Amino acid sequence: MPRKAPRRTAERILGTTLELFNRFGEPNVSTTLISAELRISPGNLYYHFPSKDELVNTLFDQFEGQLFELLGASEGVRDIEDAWFFLHSLFELIWEYRFLYRDLNHLLSRNRRLETHFPAILMRKRAALRGLLDTLIDRPAANATDEHARDAVAASTVVLLTYWLSYEYVLQPRSAMEPENAQDALLRGAYHVLELLAPHLSEEPRQHLRALIEVYRPAVHEPPATP
Amino acid sequence: MPRKAPRRTAERILGTTLELFNRFGEPNVSTTLISAELRISPGNLYYHFPSKDELVNTLFDQFEGQLFELLGASEGVRDIEDAWFFLHSLFELIWEYRFLYRDLNHLLSRNRRLETHFPAILMRKRAALRGLLDTLIDRPAANATDEHARDAVAASTVVLLTYWLSYEYVLQPRSAMEPENAQDALLRGAYHVLELLAPHLSEEPRQHLRALIEVYRPAVHEPPATP
Repeated sequence: MPRKAPRRTAERILGTTLELFNRFGEPNVSTTLISAELRISPGNLYYHFPSKDELVNTLFDQFEGQLFELLGASEGVRDIEDAWFFLHSLFELIWEYRFLYRDLNHLLSRNRRLETHFPAILMRKRAALRGLLDTLIDRPAANATDEHARDAVAASTVVLLTYWLSYEYVLQPRSAMEPENAQDALLRGAYHVLELLAPHLSEEPRQHLRALIEVYRPAVHEPPATP
Repeated sequence: MPRKAPRRTAERILGTTLELFNRFGEPNVSTTLISAELRISPGNLYYHFPSKDELVNTLFDQFEGQLFELLGASEGVRDIEDAWFFLHSLFELIWEYRFLYRDLNHLLSRNRRLETHFPAILMRKRAALRGLLDTLIDRPAANATDEHARDAVAASTVVLLTYWLSYEYVLQPRSAMEPENAQDALLRGAYHVLELLAPHLSEEPRQHLRALIEVYRPAVHEPPATP
């Protein structure tokens, strides 16, 4: 079926590009490097994606679609186990497209699509997190102060979700973005989010959360700083 | 006193560079732009700073010196008012050198000095925040769980301190880094850190904190997302 060849090539290009972006950072990866890594001619790459921004945008669209689907699933969260699974899935998706988060500000300053779409991404993350918090606390906000506090926790959680991998990267620039670090980095991120939510929960879910955390304890300790 | 001229030129170069880096992001500012802005020849700039990295490193050294001095002052924090002032000063310093934080990962991936120094910066921030938390909670950690929870809060606080401005930047890329946004951005950052610490405090300092927050309430609300 030779007709399918171009499509397969496009997918192969995207897969390799994502891998290179994730490992070295988008600003450090040229289209020349991508075509060399794929062993295709720059002309062939250009035929599928006329600019690096086309590659960034296509990968971003894939990410955005998956993220919105996942954030929708936050409405199904009923207890701590669900919340843990949800947060872990969220970190997994962010990990899969970590190049977007690694150089987010730099990308935004040069790419109009990211600049216009990312604010909505953060706002939707925040709404999902606020909903999750309400579910876990299991009683409506008592007053305006309570309401503000929950909003603040939701916003801080979004900052943690969005920048946890960057934090790990600063601590260990040489290894943090490598695949073998994935499992631990995701657990540490999810753990810190849950510790942030914990003091707001009522007694029973908080105990449940504590038990869950103890299971993952060995993995969640801070990475040592090894420059 | 013509002898002092070179030094004054170097200082003027640093001031203008810091301003341009902060407004447009270090990756988007060339040495050509810097010399044009200063109305000096590229050769003159080169005489003082033979590469852009020399400029980055000199500015970084200034920042690091001031930061360590400020973090040392965390030991003098006795109550919520002190903590608020300390956090606000910390955000002020970060704001002053916001280009370092705006493209931190990108800078780290290309600059050895930042790569080797920044892990220690985050670790010292974390130690200072952990100490601050112990002072505000005003009783030793009851057990290992309590100890771990405080460590987690300190780490999450560092993530907030380090990335709050990035978060604001993503929400409002066109205006977040402009000087007129400084005051509100710093208040919002400090407020979110305090809300993160609040549930861990004992009753009296928590009430004190609530009162303080109400004073700043109008300013601390989330910026609207206006892409």
